[in-house]
Amino acid sequence: MPDAGLVGRLAGIVGQAHVVTDPGDMAAQSANILHGNRGLPRCIVWPASTAEVAAVVRACAAAGVAMVPLGGNTGLSGGTVPLPAGDCVMIGLRRLNRITDVSPEGGTITVQAGCILADIQACATQHDRLFPLSLGAEGSCQIGGNIATNAGGVNALRHGVMRDLVLGLEVVLPDGTVLDMLRALRKDNAGYDLKQLFIGSGGTLGIVTAAVLRLMPLPRHRATALLALRDSAAALDLLSRFGAQFGAGLVSAELMDALTLRLVRDHAPGVTIPYETATDWHLLIELAGPDADLPEKLTELLADALDAGLILDATLAQNGAQAANLWAIRHATAEVARQLGPRYAHDVSVPVAAQPAFLADLAARMQAWPEVTLMIFGHLGDGNLHVLTGFPGLDRDAPALPELRRATEDAVTAAIIAHRGSVTAEHGIGLNYIHRLVASRPEPEIALMQALRLAVDPQRLMNPGKVLP
Amino acid sequence: MPDAGLVGRLAGIVGQAHVVTDPGDMAAQSANILHGNRGLPRCIVWPASTAEVAAVVRACAAAGVAMVPLGGNTGLSGGTVPLPAGDCVMIGLRRLNRITDVSPEGGTITVQAGCILADIQACATQHDRLFPLSLGAEGSCQIGGNIATNAGGVNALRHGVMRDLVLGLEVVLPDGTVLDMLRALRKDNAGYDLKQLFIGSGGTLGIVTAAVLRLMPLPRHRATALLALRDSAAALDLLSRFGAQFGAGLVSAELMDALTLRLVRDHAPGVTIPYETATDWHLLIELAGPDADLPEKLTELLADALDAGLILDATLAQNGAQAANLWAIRHATAEVARQLGPRYAHDVSVPVAAQPAFLADLAARMQAWPEVTLMIFGHLGDGNLHVLTGFPGLDRDAPALPELRRATEDAVTAAIIAHRGSVTAEHGIGLNYIHRLVASRPEPEIALMQALRLAVDPQRLMNPGKVLP
Repeated sequence: MPDAGLVGRLAGIVGQAHVVTDPGDMAAQSANILHGNRGLPRCIVWPASTAEVAAVVRACAAAGVAMVPLGGNTGLSGGTVPLPAGDCVMIGLRRLNRITDVSPEGGTITVQAGCILADIQACATQHDRLFPLSLGAEGSCQIGGNIATNAGGVNALRHGVMRDLVLGLEVVLPDGTVLDMLRALRKDNAGYDLKQLFIGSGGTLGIVTAAVLRLMPLPRHRATALLALRDSAAALDLLSRFGAQFGAGLVSAELMDALTLRLVRDHAPGVTIPYETATDWHLLIELAGPDADLPEKLTELLADALDAGLILDATLAQNGAQAANLWAIRHATAEVARQLGPRYAHDVSVPVAAQPAFLADLAARMQAWPEVTLMIFGHLGDGNLHVLTGFPGLDRDAPALPELRRATEDAVTAAIIAHRGSVTAEHGIGLNYIHRLVASRPEPEIALMQALRLAVDPQRLMNPGKVLP
Repeated sequence: MPDAGLVGRLAGIVGQAHVVTDPGDMAAQSANILHGNRGLPRCIVWPASTAEVAAVVRACAAAGVAMVPLGGNTGLSGGTVPLPAGDCVMIGLRRLNRITDVSPEGGTITVQAGCILADIQACATQHDRLFPLSLGAEGSCQIGGNIATNAGGVNALRHGVMRDLVLGLEVVLPDGTVLDMLRALRKDNAGYDLKQLFIGSGGTLGIVTAAVLRLMPLPRHRATALLALRDSAAALDLLSRFGAQFGAGLVSAELMDALTLRLVRDHAPGVTIPYETATDWHLLIELAGPDADLPEKLTELLADALDAGLILDATLAQNGAQAANLWAIRHATAEVARQLGPRYAHDVSVPVAAQPAFLADLAARMQAWPEVTLMIFGHLGDGNLHVLTGFPGLDRDAPALPELRRATEDAVTAAIIAHRGSVTAEHGIGLNYIHRLVASRPEPEIALMQALRLAVDPQRLMNPGKVLP
C-alpha cells in the first residue's frame, strides 16, 4: 500500500529543494520531447549521488511505490511516461553529471549517468580520443538513458551501438542494492555478464548510475559524400566495395528516399541539395581514418561505381562546410517530416542484405492505401530503416485515422516479420510499442523476458508497464 | 529421481547408434583436452538436429537427470566435466555441423553449434570474407562451445570477443523449449537482448544449437613484427601510436616475457627468435588492412619508436614464412610451458592502462616465493595476461605443492582485485575456478547470477556444479 509519508522521507534523503511536488513544476520537468505529459508522478526526486539513488529506491521499495527513472527525456517510445499516473516516483539522474575518470592510454572514460552525451564527446576530443556514439538528441540526452535504451545513431556501422561501448556499469537494483561493476575490462568471463542485462532494458531492471565507456582513436581525416543510387540493391554492392577498399573506414551509410530529399529541399531553410539527379534512393556516406588521401581514394571508388552504373551522380564534400551541409540534409529529416501531416514511425531492422527485398515488399503492401505517404531514411549499413507512414490531408482527430493507422502498422509489421526483422532497431519498446513486440516475437521469448524481470524485480516496481506486456 | 528407462528413450530419439554407454567408449569420447576424464556420465547422446536436442533435453528434464553439453571439449576450465559423476547425460553437438547460410553481402554466416571453428573461417575466406575469431584450438573447438564460453583469442583487439560476433542464436532451454532467435540483425532493441544471457554462460542456461555470426571484409594486406620493448609501460605508448597511425588496423598485440622467449628458443624445434636483444618484454604485433603500404608505414612508426627509446630492437616479417615464424613463437607458449614443471594458469584481465602497474605489483607479491617461476604472455591490447606459476623441481604429488599453489594463487588473485581486474578474461569459470569467482566478486553480483540461473533453470539440471557456487 502506498505510504503517505514517502515524499517526506525522500526529502530527507535528497533535501527538500530536490523533491518536486508542484504539478506545474512536475509537468515542466518531466515533459517528454515527443510525448509531452501523460499524467504526472506523485513527485520527482533529484538525487545527487549513487548512494542517494539507492536510498531513494530503498524507500520507494519499502513503501511499495513504483519508480520511473528519468534521463534526458528524449526517448521516442514513451519509456519515461509516469506510470501508474499520479502514484509513481520519478527519479531524475541529471545531478549525477560528473565525468569521474578519463584514460586516453587505456581507451576508457568513466561517467555518471546524468552526463549529457555531447559533454562526453567533447571531453574525449579534448583527450585526443573519440567517443563515437552520435545521435540527433546528443545535446540533451543523458548517457544513462542511452545505456538503458541501447542507443544507436549514425556511427553504429563502424563503432557499434551503445552496448558495444560499455565496459563497466554501476546499477541500483529495484530493492536498492548497488551493483558496482565499474570495471574497465575489455574481456571478462567471470560468471554471467550481468551488465548486458541492464543495457537496453528500458529502466525496467534497475537504474544505471554510472558507466565505464570505450574511447577510440580520434580519426585524423574524414570524407563525406552524397550519392544518387541506381536503386536500393546498388547500395549493398557499394557497401562491399567500401569494405574491400577501406576496411573499417566506412563510418556512416545513411539512406534517404526521393521524398526525403524533396522535403528537405523545399522545407529546410539553408540546406542545399547538391545535385538535381532524379532517382529513388540516395546514400550519404562518411569515411574516417588516419590517412590524408581518403578523399582521393573515395573519388576513385566513386568513379568506378559510376562506370559500373551503381550510382548516377555523386557529390564529394570539398571542405567542412560542405560536409556539414550534407549532414544537415540527413539531420533535417525529423523536422521536414512534419509536412506529412499525421504520421507514425516504424524503427525497422532487417538483415543488411534483405533491405532491397524488404523495401520492395513494403512498397507492394502499401499499395493497398494509395492515400498514405511513405517516407524512408535510415542507417542502411546497419539494416536500420526509419519508415514513416504519413496521412496528408487528414487531421490528427480524423475519425478514419485510427483504423488506417492500425491497418498500415500491421502491414509494416508483417513485412518486418516476413524478412525476419525487428519492430525496433534502436528506439526500443518503451510504452508505445509493446503491441508490436507481442505481434512479432514468439511467446517463449517474451515468457523468458518476463521470467528474468520477475527474478530481478519481484515486486514489479521498476518502470512498470514498459517494455513487456 | 533418476529414471532407469531414460537411456532407452534417448535411443528412441537419436537412434541406438548415437547413444554411448560403454565406459571405454564414453571415456574416449568425453576426455577433455586438459583435464582428461574425471568420472563418466550415465551416457553420451549425439543428436543430429535441433529437434533431437530439444527432445533429448525434454526427456532428461522429465526424468530429473542433469545434462552436460559437449562441444569440442577443448575448454581450459573443466566446463564439460560430467557432474554428477555417473549420473548425468552428456549431450554432444558434433553432428550438428552444417553451415546453413552465407551472405557475403550481408556480412553474415549461419552455422550449427557443432561446426569446427576452422571450418567456419575457411568458408568465410572462400566467400572473400573474414570470420575473425582465432585461437589455438581452432582446428577442433566447436562454435557452440566458443559461444557458450565467450571465447577470446588473438584477434579480439580488433574484432572483439565471441559476444561481439554473434548476431542471432538458437538455444534449447533447460525444459526443452527451443528459442529460435536466428535473426541476422545488427541492431535489435525489441525487449531484452536474450542472446547475451547465453553467450558466456558456460552451458548452464541452455544448449546453443545454432548461430548467425558476423563476417568482416577480408583484409588484403598484413604486416607482422616482433618488438623488444624498453619496458611494459612502453607497450601502452606504442598502442596509442598504432591507434593514431593505423586506426583499426592493429589486429593483435601479444606480449611475451623474457622467459617465454628463452623457453621457445630452447625447446620449440624449428621456431627461431629473430633477435638476441635482452629485455624483459617483447611484443608481437600484427596489422591488417586494405592498403599495400602497411609494411612501409609500420617501418616508419618503428623507426620513430626506436628513436623515442620505446623499443630496443624490432624484426618486421618480410614474407609469409617469416610472419608464420613470429606467430609460431606465440603459439609455442602452451607447449614450452611444460618446462616449468607443475604449473597453474591464471587468465588475468586488468584495465589496459593498468597492466604495467599490475605486472610490477605481481612481481613484488611473488618475491615471497623465490622458488616459484612466473611465465607471462597474453593479449596486451585487451588487458588479458596469461600468468603461469611454475614449480620447477617439485613433483606433481609433492606434499608442499598444494599449500604453495594455494598461497601463490591467492597472491595472484589479490593483485587482480587490487587493480579491479577479472580472475578470468577468456577461459571462463567452468568447474575449476568457482573459488576464484567467489573470492573476487561482491556477493550481490553472485546472488543476481544465481537468481537468473534459477529463473531460467528452476530444476538446476543444466550443467550443474559449473560457473556458480
